[in-house]
Amino acid sequence: MGEQRIVETTFPVRYAETDQMQIAHHSSYVVWMEEGRSEFMRQSGADYARMERSGYFFAVTGIQVRYLSPAHYGERVTVRTWVKDLRSRQLTFGYEIVNAENGTRLATGQSELVCTDREGRVARIPEMWRKLQAADS
Amino acid sequence: MGEQRIVETTFPVRYAETDQMQIAHHSSYVVWMEEGRSEFMRQSGADYARMERSGYFFAVTGIQVRYLSPAHYGERVTVRTWVKDLRSRQLTFGYEIVNAENGTRLATGQSELVCTDREGRVARIPEMWRKLQAADS
Amino acid sequence: MGEQRIVETTFPVRYAETDQMQIAHHSSYVVWMEEGRSEFMRQSGADYARMERSGYFFAVTGIQVRYLSPAHYGERVTVRTWVKDLRSRQLTFGYEIVNAENGTRLATGQSELVCTDREGRVARIPEMWRKLQAADS
Amino acid sequence: MGEQRIVETTFPVRYAETDQMQIAHHSSYVVWMEEGRSEFMRQSGADYARMERSGYFFAVTGIQVRYLSPAHYGERVTVRTWVKDLRSRQLTFGYEIVNAENGTRLATGQSELVCTDREGRVARIPEMWRKLQAADS
Repeated sequence: MGEQRIVETTFPVRYAETDQMQIAHHSSYVVWMEEGRSEFMRQSGADYARMERSGYFFAVTGIQVRYLSPAHYGERVTVRTWVKDLRSRQLTFGYEIVNAENGTRLATGQSELVCTDREGRVARIPEMWRKLQAADS
Repeated sequence: MGEQRIVETTFPVRYAETDQMQIAHHSSYVVWMEEGRSEFMRQSGADYARMERSGYFFAVTGIQVRYLSPAHYGERVTVRTWVKDLRSRQLTFGYEIVNAENGTRLATGQSELVCTDREGRVARIPEMWRKLQAADS
Repeated sequence: MGEQRIVETTFPVRYAETDQMQIAHHSSYVVWMEEGRSEFMRQSGADYARMERSGYFFAVTGIQVRYLSPAHYGERVTVRTWVKDLRSRQLTFGYEIVNAENGTRLATGQSELVCTDREGRVARIPEMWRKLQAADS
Repeated sequence: MGEQRIVETTFPVRYAETDQMQIAHHSSYVVWMEEGRSEFMRQSGADYARMERSGYFFAVTGIQVRYLSPAHYGERVTVRTWVKDLRSRQLTFGYEIVNAENGTRLATGQSELVCTDREGRVARIPEMWRKLQAADS
């Protein structure tokens, strides 16, 4: 577990992501988590765009987010992403979102995915994507 | 022109659509215009979901929006939609967005669409969708 | 508990809410749950826009969503919303999202909120909003 | 004109930004243009978050987008942003969006903004933001 692979991706909070409470809307974090996962897969050599073209998909079956501190327009946020659990047909990603400048923890979360084929049937995760967790950057 | 068919669709401004200026973000209007057009097609018996299943698509090639007055969370807005121009392969929708309670004009806009087939090639608009403009509700 | 107040709100899945898996993107459900909660408060005489103007806010501290079945463009979805737990400073809403035409359960979820004042300090939920759960429509 | 200052900002197309036509939804470009403008202002030493804190705002009064070629999930897009017109109270930004890998032009656009104060009254653009166009990077 000490060797847990963690991928970081950083970007500024967009103006369109703020709401009238003058902070990033809580649904934005769900999109950021997805971007963390996209970058995790890209850096693991298991690009998700390529996976879909090969006929396999990850359908989201559950999400959880815990909000700890608000994010504001223009602040840079870092999404830290790792594989929390990997089974033959299911995958759980864990996330921590922090303010990139001062390290304040903004949120933690997880998302559960199930592998499906083009017809939407649950399928075994292809071998190359199973190597995700162990991959070296 | 006096017989121009106009379809109205009304919904409340969502909290997620507001930004830190405490008004609906300007990109929300583009989504509202699209919903106005969806409803226009549904009420014209030319449901767009059905059109896509039959292998034809409308790709957006241009949009224009003029913002006149802000919309706020919880206010009900009405999108008025009509066909502004219809050619063999292209279609332009016009929109007016008003506050549903007091009638204040919030925005005007238009979107230009081109008909394509599944391969993305420009195609002739199928006959049943060509009747859009003339249809009676 | 048999007298649990449940409020329903129904709207079509927007085209902009779909993703390339050709279903509503999972972050859309978070926005729908928020709209369910907005409607719950409006129908309970505790309109949230009014609450903010009076200087109190509900900040989201946690969300959970379980996805059961996909939603598609143009399908009408109904969000069923209720108060799951109410404490002096915290409030948990429960949700069930169903296909409005055939009743298929699409998702279940919950969101936890904490009451704050204008300065972001945790505050006691004002009395009129505390009546939410018991209110008759 | 040869000395026209242009700022570029590059990011990948997000999965949540795709729609069921399997391309980036046309409303995403409006958000991208706004991010281009945010970056333009940051690099010009006229950070917009700071401008709002000082009591001045840019309200969007009009947008136009022309879509030339679709963008897909995971592709990196570059938004090129410049000041097209600057008057005492109004500002027009021009944009060109290209595929960052192969340079294909995806869209061109513009947005018109008016300067307002905290009460929403039209105001003169503060001097430091008037220097935007001329600024050296």
